[in-house]
Amino acid sequence: MISFESDYDNGCHEAILSRLAQTNDEKATGYGLDDYCTAAKEKIRAACDCPNADVFFLVGGTQTNATVIDAMLHGYQGVLAVETGHINVHESGAIEFGGHKVLTLHSHDGKMDAGELGQWLHDFYADPTLDHMVFPGMVYITFSTERGTIYSLEELQTISTICKQYELPLFIDGARLGYGLMAEGCDVTIQQLAALCDVFYIGGTKCGAYCGEAVVFPRGNAPAHFFTTVKQHGALLAKGRLLGIQFDTLMTDGLYFKIARHAVEQAMLLRDAFIARGYQMYSDSPTNQQFVLLDKNTIERLEKDFVFEQWYPVGDMMNCRFVTSWATPAADVDALIAAL
Amino acid sequence: MISFESDYDNGCHEAILSRLAQTNDEKATGYGLDDYCTAAKEKIRAACDCPNADVFFLVGGTQTNATVIDAMLHGYQGVLAVETGHINVHESGAIEFGGHKVLTLHSHDGKMDAGELGQWLHDFYADPTLDHMVFPGMVYITFSTERGTIYSLEELQTISTICKQYELPLFIDGARLGYGLMAEGCDVTIQQLAALCDVFYIGGTKCGAYCGEAVVFPRGNAPAHFFTTVKQHGALLAKGRLLGIQFDTLMTDGLYFKIARHAVEQAMLLRDAFIARGYQMYSDSPTNQQFVLLDKNTIERLEKDFVFEQWYPVGDMMNCRFVTSWATPAADVDALIAAL
Amino acid sequence: MISFESDYDNGCHEAILSRLAQTNDEKATGYGLDDYCTAAKEKIRAACDCPNADVFFLVGGTQTNATVIDAMLHGYQGVLAVETGHINVHESGAIEFGGHKVLTLHSHDGKMDAGELGQWLHDFYADPTLDHMVFPGMVYITFSTERGTIYSLEELQTISTICKQYELPLFIDGARLGYGLMAEGCDVTIQQLAALCDVFYIGGTKCGAYCGEAVVFPRGNAPAHFFTTVKQHGALLAKGRLLGIQFDTLMTDGLYFKIARHAVEQAMLLRDAFIARGYQMYSDSPTNQQFVLLDKNTIERLEKDFVFEQWYPVGDMMNCRFVTSWATPAADVDALIAAL
Amino acid sequence: MISFESDYDNGCHEAILSRLAQTNDEKATGYGLDDYCTAAKEKIRAACDCPNADVFFLVGGTQTNATVIDAMLHGYQGVLAVETGHINVHESGAIEFGGHKVLTLHSHDGKMDAGELGQWLHDFYADPTLDHMVFPGMVYITFSTERGTIYSLEELQTISTICKQYELPLFIDGARLGYGLMAEGCDVTIQQLAALCDVFYIGGTKCGAYCGEAVVFPRGNAPAHFFTTVKQHGALLAKGRLLGIQFDTLMTDGLYFKIARHAVEQAMLLRDAFIARGYQMYSDSPTNQQFVLLDKNTIERLEKDFVFEQWYPVGDMMNCRFVTSWATPAADVDALIAAL
Repeated sequence: MISFESDYDNGCHEAILSRLAQTNDEKATGYGLDDYCTAAKEKIRAACDCPNADVFFLVGGTQTNATVIDAMLHGYQGVLAVETGHINVHESGAIEFGGHKVLTLHSHDGKMDAGELGQWLHDFYADPTLDHMVFPGMVYITFSTERGTIYSLEELQTISTICKQYELPLFIDGARLGYGLMAEGCDVTIQQLAALCDVFYIGGTKCGAYCGEAVVFPRGNAPAHFFTTVKQHGALLAKGRLLGIQFDTLMTDGLYFKIARHAVEQAMLLRDAFIARGYQMYSDSPTNQQFVLLDKNTIERLEKDFVFEQWYPVGDMMNCRFVTSWATPAADVDALIAAL
Repeated sequence: MISFESDYDNGCHEAILSRLAQTNDEKATGYGLDDYCTAAKEKIRAACDCPNADVFFLVGGTQTNATVIDAMLHGYQGVLAVETGHINVHESGAIEFGGHKVLTLHSHDGKMDAGELGQWLHDFYADPTLDHMVFPGMVYITFSTERGTIYSLEELQTISTICKQYELPLFIDGARLGYGLMAEGCDVTIQQLAALCDVFYIGGTKCGAYCGEAVVFPRGNAPAHFFTTVKQHGALLAKGRLLGIQFDTLMTDGLYFKIARHAVEQAMLLRDAFIARGYQMYSDSPTNQQFVLLDKNTIERLEKDFVFEQWYPVGDMMNCRFVTSWATPAADVDALIAAL
Repeated sequence: MISFESDYDNGCHEAILSRLAQTNDEKATGYGLDDYCTAAKEKIRAACDCPNADVFFLVGGTQTNATVIDAMLHGYQGVLAVETGHINVHESGAIEFGGHKVLTLHSHDGKMDAGELGQWLHDFYADPTLDHMVFPGMVYITFSTERGTIYSLEELQTISTICKQYELPLFIDGARLGYGLMAEGCDVTIQQLAALCDVFYIGGTKCGAYCGEAVVFPRGNAPAHFFTTVKQHGALLAKGRLLGIQFDTLMTDGLYFKIARHAVEQAMLLRDAFIARGYQMYSDSPTNQQFVLLDKNTIERLEKDFVFEQWYPVGDMMNCRFVTSWATPAADVDALIAAL
Repeated sequence: MISFESDYDNGCHEAILSRLAQTNDEKATGYGLDDYCTAAKEKIRAACDCPNADVFFLVGGTQTNATVIDAMLHGYQGVLAVETGHINVHESGAIEFGGHKVLTLHSHDGKMDAGELGQWLHDFYADPTLDHMVFPGMVYITFSTERGTIYSLEELQTISTICKQYELPLFIDGARLGYGLMAEGCDVTIQQLAALCDVFYIGGTKCGAYCGEAVVFPRGNAPAHFFTTVKQHGALLAKGRLLGIQFDTLMTDGLYFKIARHAVEQAMLLRDAFIARGYQMYSDSPTNQQFVLLDKNTIERLEKDFVFEQWYPVGDMMNCRFVTSWATPAADVDALIAAL
């Protein structure tokens, strides 16, 4: 069976494995205070062109979202996200567990519309009963989104401007940051992204690491005692070196971006093949997640050799997801294309 | 420098490293549903003689404590622990973040006294104002404790009996379970421990793994939808295989216990040398953590070659902690003994 | 100025005032354990035909919703409500403060559609990723709704049946229960309502009392230690007699229902007058809240003598709310009708 | 039976009852925005000599403590209190429900020792593991305390100085503020108290009102959007006038202080009688709560005619509490004295 099920079904990149082996007998202080973490942070600051950035390594995505959002919101505030945002759907209520409401806007193929954001904020502050409501305290977007789409630089700039106007921090969930930045047609650099938001993270779990998300506060603007908040949320890894070593490796010589680009290239080959053979794409995704409408017969046929997710029915068809990753062999894509 | 600073400053056991390397190119379903997790769970059930146990793999100790306690308590309940219990001191309020009070008893070298527990519960239920107070909903103890001590089988049985009498689940924090069970003079087996409590965990982080704690509900008594609660607490690892592979390795051929015994043996050599040379031990620890009173000159002298923690002053002396681990070379202990 | 602004802008019913004066010098035990509370509970059990009901008196609506919902949900569960439900809009995130997500369905003039509820639940349990989502743990509806509408008996029965099918408790927010049960055309009795749900409350604040909501668990099915949960939520009134006296008075000789009917009768006069004069009603409300579309000139003219709320624009018109209450003099309604 | 059971077992002061009757037919805006609340706030500002104070009216003590503490703490912070502090014992975990730990110091007859506070803070900031602990974010004391004691001006000043040194807000729980300020030998004025702390409240429930606590941020230093936080905590009374009218009455012509002084005077008569007859006082209380050690026979004898609480055994004796209030008739005290 060849799997396109997810981008977190492989181990880690071989360079990471080597580093883990090389360093295994060394001793290192715990909780992210080791030399590997320090080195990785420096490389991230350099890559983002943010010399004063605060960088923290957490273990997973839901954990990172919950910790960052809770740390940055006041108790009376909620977080604005689109309905399909990961925090609103697939995090088992982790944000609400921290006491905060997810305030939702419509999703446009996974993206937030800046105009709708502005309108929502205008309407909120015009509402005479606003003191009885949950105040917006942050804007959350994903890059790339859960639907494989990305924001253009102009779109990000517009959202960022609205956030600044309303003094709302902008948080970019980068669980798939690499695949977004390396997407076909992406006109956003990581430096620009860092400059436009108040906090984001570089997702390791889905792009080369065994686990780990690198949270970046670009202008040294981490909330006071964020370390303690991370600990309180159960998100502080005792052997922080495991994260430091992984990110140090990924951020060396642009490895993170190279392997992300590979995944996107494979996905584009797949997408082109789908289109060439007359399949209808559900969304126009330039990233490693491809959504295509398949009929029952095709699904049954492909399932004999390939693993992929069936998301939900669209009319008589099924919206199916095929995911490539940093670890997808070209041969796997060739095989799938041959089978189409 | 030779370090006795902690038992989580090394990488992982070489057998784990090998398994990670061997399996790295395989694909595996996420979230702990992979074959390695399944195999590890079976081995844990066998080791504990609990064929119906529910087993879950979480990443770290604070996270595990917070998730288990929150899952098992009602909103109006708190957890009983000794003052020095990890949840009461060094978890940054993770239990309270989940909405629960830590109700404290006196600590006796890190241990809870069964008699005091019984008295506390008697007094609570005799208090006419109890409906205005936090109800006890669970008893939390550590094995081995934060002070290196362990409970005897009889002590565990007495605590367990009181818990049953008051219908309180007993939770054993096993962050250092291996070092406790392999302690000098320990008369408790893992099967007995499993039979006497309602939930415990086998700590991997401090005993051979890079990360990971295996939570065991011995009689299949996990709270409903515990998987979702784990996710909500940010404690569900996407690449669950990382935990499955580690525990499968540790639970094969008793590796976990063998390497724990090594640490204890080294600690006993150290303890005996301290005593033989006239140093005063702060507590009588049969496990891998040794606490000894040192004067300023001795500390300064030893610090030139050795790393260890100074906990707190006791009169003119300092209570210092020396920790061995599964990875401590015999040569390190020899060197320290020579330097005493 | 004559006010139709809200149904909580008067003091309390004169019969309550008299009872407060008569009993003022008596001493009474605190926290709802006094004789007035006991008597009021008995009258509520009788009125609801629920001899085993557990009854608790809380102070206000948001507090009651937050306490009841938190007490009845497990940590991994959320509450299903329509988008316009009070808990989703005007409670400043009190439900999320307790750690629970409000899962939303479309609002139909304030009401939940049983078919949509059934579909939502079907889809949820058919979703292969459900373990990563917030589980539904309760259904919340309001009677009468925030838009003045009510459920028919058949509608309530259908919702209740679906709840039973999925083992979800049904919670009816009765902040305006009196106005709902006394509504024009209402075919639901309080006994039927009690039999169809798992918990509801009789709203005092908006119907004759100075404050107070009587929470009823019809079959003695209050969660364990609900008293303590009420205290924990800051919802336990020290001088509980203040609530006991009020509800004892309201539940004597059907006073609560009589005064609610008065408000509805006044509202119906108002509604008929609006319609007779050609105004367009925004919704078809048989209760004490009337929503009508007014143009700018009419608003300006009426505002000289009358107070009412402008909710939101509908095209060129404004959706305006006129509220009658138990205390609305017939003369006030006459004056408004004359001014139309 | 004559009751000395508590100071919240009467109705309200007759002047309040009159005002409620006089104003009952008036209409008033909800949520504390009415004229009575406005007037009451002005009188409180004048009484406290704090022209810029922010004043809010909440309903009860536990609610007020939980709301104020949660509003002023960051998520990673706890509140320092003595072990016997109301928030640590008799609030059913309301503080922890909001996510915060109560950090405890020893109680000295209900009081915090400034020296111990300073030492605790010194030790905390000297602890190398402090980042893994709950940070202190506020100091909470009660005035008068749960044991009837009060702080001298010098004691308050010392505590206040330490709080300023560590940038910790000082919160004074004034559930029994009147009885404290009017205590025998009290050398603190309400103006001095307001100047020395960052937030306090004037307890109405136990001193003349039916319900209500007036929270004062003396220098206009209420947390942003505190109104919304109050609502979120279920502590916003819809008919806020009920609180406004009560406090407006209590703060007119010093009524609050006069009736508090009456209670203290009665308590002093009682105390002197106890002492004159050779009873041993458990604590030296200059306020309305008197604690005395009684033997079994005396308790049985007195219980025939009097109601009082038995707190806990002290040796062979029982520590019994006798409480006077604003409403205690002199005849009741005479009767008890005669019975001694």
